[in-house]
Amino acid sequence: MLAFNDLADFPHAEIGSLLKLAARLEREPEPRALEGKVLSLLFLNPSLRTLASFQAAMVRLGGGSFVISPEMSIHGLESRSGIVMDGVAAEHIREAVPVIASYGDAIGIRAFAERLNLDDDLADRRFAELAALADKPTINMESAINHPCQSLADWKTMDELAIPSTGGRFVLSWAYHPKALPLAVPAATVHMAAMRGMDVVVLRPPGFELPDAVMDKARAAAEASGGRVSETEDRREAMEGAHVIYAKSWSSTRHYTDRLADQALREELTGWCVDEPWFDNAREDCRFMHCLPVRRGVVVADRILDGPRSVVIREAQNRMLVQMAVLYRMLKG
Amino acid sequence: MLAFNDLADFPHAEIGSLLKLAARLEREPEPRALEGKVLSLLFLNPSLRTLASFQAAMVRLGGGSFVISPEMSIHGLESRSGIVMDGVAAEHIREAVPVIASYGDAIGIRAFAERLNLDDDLADRRFAELAALADKPTINMESAINHPCQSLADWKTMDELAIPSTGGRFVLSWAYHPKALPLAVPAATVHMAAMRGMDVVVLRPPGFELPDAVMDKARAAAEASGGRVSETEDRREAMEGAHVIYAKSWSSTRHYTDRLADQALREELTGWCVDEPWFDNAREDCRFMHCLPVRRGVVVADRILDGPRSVVIREAQNRMLVQMAVLYRMLKG
Amino acid sequence: MLAFNDLADFPHAEIGSLLKLAARLEREPEPRALEGKVLSLLFLNPSLRTLASFQAAMVRLGGGSFVISPEMSIHGLESRSGIVMDGVAAEHIREAVPVIASYGDAIGIRAFAERLNLDDDLADRRFAELAALADKPTINMESAINHPCQSLADWKTMDELAIPSTGGRFVLSWAYHPKALPLAVPAATVHMAAMRGMDVVVLRPPGFELPDAVMDKARAAAEASGGRVSETEDRREAMEGAHVIYAKSWSSTRHYTDRLADQALREELTGWCVDEPWFDNAREDCRFMHCLPVRRGVVVADRILDGPRSVVIREAQNRMLVQMAVLYRMLKG
Repeated sequence: MLAFNDLADFPHAEIGSLLKLAARLEREPEPRALEGKVLSLLFLNPSLRTLASFQAAMVRLGGGSFVISPEMSIHGLESRSGIVMDGVAAEHIREAVPVIASYGDAIGIRAFAERLNLDDDLADRRFAELAALADKPTINMESAINHPCQSLADWKTMDELAIPSTGGRFVLSWAYHPKALPLAVPAATVHMAAMRGMDVVVLRPPGFELPDAVMDKARAAAEASGGRVSETEDRREAMEGAHVIYAKSWSSTRHYTDRLADQALREELTGWCVDEPWFDNAREDCRFMHCLPVRRGVVVADRILDGPRSVVIREAQNRMLVQMAVLYRMLKG
Repeated sequence: MLAFNDLADFPHAEIGSLLKLAARLEREPEPRALEGKVLSLLFLNPSLRTLASFQAAMVRLGGGSFVISPEMSIHGLESRSGIVMDGVAAEHIREAVPVIASYGDAIGIRAFAERLNLDDDLADRRFAELAALADKPTINMESAINHPCQSLADWKTMDELAIPSTGGRFVLSWAYHPKALPLAVPAATVHMAAMRGMDVVVLRPPGFELPDAVMDKARAAAEASGGRVSETEDRREAMEGAHVIYAKSWSSTRHYTDRLADQALREELTGWCVDEPWFDNAREDCRFMHCLPVRRGVVVADRILDGPRSVVIREAQNRMLVQMAVLYRMLKG
Repeated sequence: MLAFNDLADFPHAEIGSLLKLAARLEREPEPRALEGKVLSLLFLNPSLRTLASFQAAMVRLGGGSFVISPEMSIHGLESRSGIVMDGVAAEHIREAVPVIASYGDAIGIRAFAERLNLDDDLADRRFAELAALADKPTINMESAINHPCQSLADWKTMDELAIPSTGGRFVLSWAYHPKALPLAVPAATVHMAAMRGMDVVVLRPPGFELPDAVMDKARAAAEASGGRVSETEDRREAMEGAHVIYAKSWSSTRHYTDRLADQALREELTGWCVDEPWFDNAREDCRFMHCLPVRRGVVVADRILDGPRSVVIREAQNRMLVQMAVLYRMLKG
């Protein structure tokens, strides 16, 4: 495996095979599988789960990793082309990334959206530029528009809970959050659920529609898998018979680069906090999913997060397990 | 071993067995004992020795670890119940701790006193709350009122130096420090020395008495071990025939939550800097112990720290060795 | 090997043997060679390549490492003697360094010049003081006046490119940079190239002469190896028939502790940015070297860095490989 940058790069069967491998490695540990192997971890944005789970995954397979992150004094990394570097940044990604990649056998890269331009972010230009500078296999640890490790963990979580793929109803719901968050998780999630063959509904208030490029990619995946993708702002309609609600806040795509307009719009939407009444017409065992971190009392009520519907901890635990499978496939001779 | 949170949880013989194991692992390394095993390290407060020694310990046993610490941008961790998280903190300990714990086979947790309320700190409520959220074996890497890894290292240090347990005189002395420091080390230390069966004297100025709960716990340990615990503000009386003086600064327990009152009291006490005259009526080979970091010229004079009495480096070195024994006992199948 | 602090400590043949070992370990990995071994990494200054490459090197040999760095809250480290520590720093290097060293089997130390006094920096007093506190083998990860790991990597890079030792012309050129940078890399580099037996020319504007101590050490190495060392401010003269130009900015040694005077001097020198015209009378295949990080458009033009002359990525990659050889020689029983 030369890259794990996007679930869409893999046929459906390959996803199944990765999930089987993850289960096998949990059942039958292989603590020497990757001895002497190194994973480079480059974080241009903060992390908790990704940081911890990738390091743990490498140790469990007998290898190791190192972390380069923005909290370290790495002089600042410049990324513009043709620039005269007489300011603060003392190093350019054109040197930093190939070097960091060269010390490992694979490299994980986290680079959130720059939010200067929606088209650039939808095309994932920043991540693509960084990945192209590494001549080692790359793993997308969350980019402007993708988060395949989270999606693979979520897929595994639904399999374990026996949530049906064909016929399973998956609601991706916008939720309130005081900040305008990136599109990576909603974009990856709607595609993943569609690729899994589910009946996917995107529930969001006006102004928070997912971009056409995101919806089109999900619809193409649904077509191939026998799934379905629709969108609505009507909560009752969306939740009807739902097996899962996956909550996530994201930016207004109508005001993507205009924080003030986004703010004005979202301030009216504090009622979008998932709580028990949302589940009125869902299936009785309807699950609550979220990629974490989650703001209690803002995105979701405590009683949901602490109750039997919530599978958020399991999703996070599965991050390590699916990443072990990806690393094993990528690095085991 | 399901937890290493408090020396008091272990019978005397089990401490001896851990110390024997530490010595054996130093003599006969087992660099594959914990292959594929992961230790999660959660630091809610800064660290040097603990951070380094736990990471080194895991490597020496063939496993590995990862660190989550407050210096990283982990969004800030909220710990209050029922809170609406619309402020800075983007994640709650109720999600963060179970997830971090799930990536490891055991979890070390450091969480100093919050100093909002002496009773809460004496009951170690913050640490207990964090530990309860992890469904893996826990290690106390210093809590509001305990520091069992330091105590076990100190015990080993005294054994190596052939400082008698029965009949050995151990003076825990308050020392000056510009800041009001936590009670964890003095509380753990007085208990450890009492449990070791020593003749323990707590030497402290008025206003810096250790809380009843701390003294009672130490006295109970002394009773079981044949030791003795007393307290005084008279230096000559305390040091009479002493084998060891263990210096440490701590907060005024009379003004535990009132920094200004504490400050006013301690400002008069800059003379509590351990120096050669303190040893006048101690045993000639009386040792100087301290958990580090230590402020030279403030807590203790250079000539003591650099002279033959000091065993502070050895105490710190023993941190890694005893932690290897704890980890081995906890994680080796 | 008890220390790797200075290339000058090793006979020429030993350098050759280390480079052979580096090549062998790349060709035939030994992922269990250092199992259970720990490298302590103490960074008193920032790092990217060194931080990453040492961690990766230990994993590739089956061991591990831990990092203590200034970005962590390590309370601040005091280094003055006889000081009363009632300020910010809560720990002295006299305790911190022996403890950190004790957790590892070797210790890497990075400590840049303090720039209080040129003689102290030329004598590398700060590094020597730190290294003397560790009773484990030490590795110089860049000190006030040395950077032997970089030099060894550069030597390997030139060997791989078949750049002649005897008769190879090596130009170490000052370059513009907005800040007054340390002397470590130029000092180490001129010595390394001289020790390799090359015809070394130091090209620098008036005011940026390398100190006599640096030039004398290089000349002594040249004498032993059959090389030659000269200096000039005439670019054409320097570049005549050059095999390599190694660019690096450094402080004015005429104004070493006077930043304003240095600034005034260097402001006139923005033309010292390596570009294609510099190579007019060099060998056609003349290479461009730099230790990184490098400021594009300031120290060197993009077209050089992105063109076929540049070997800067290879130099950085070789850091890990030569450090593996050093660690292997130092730690393998």
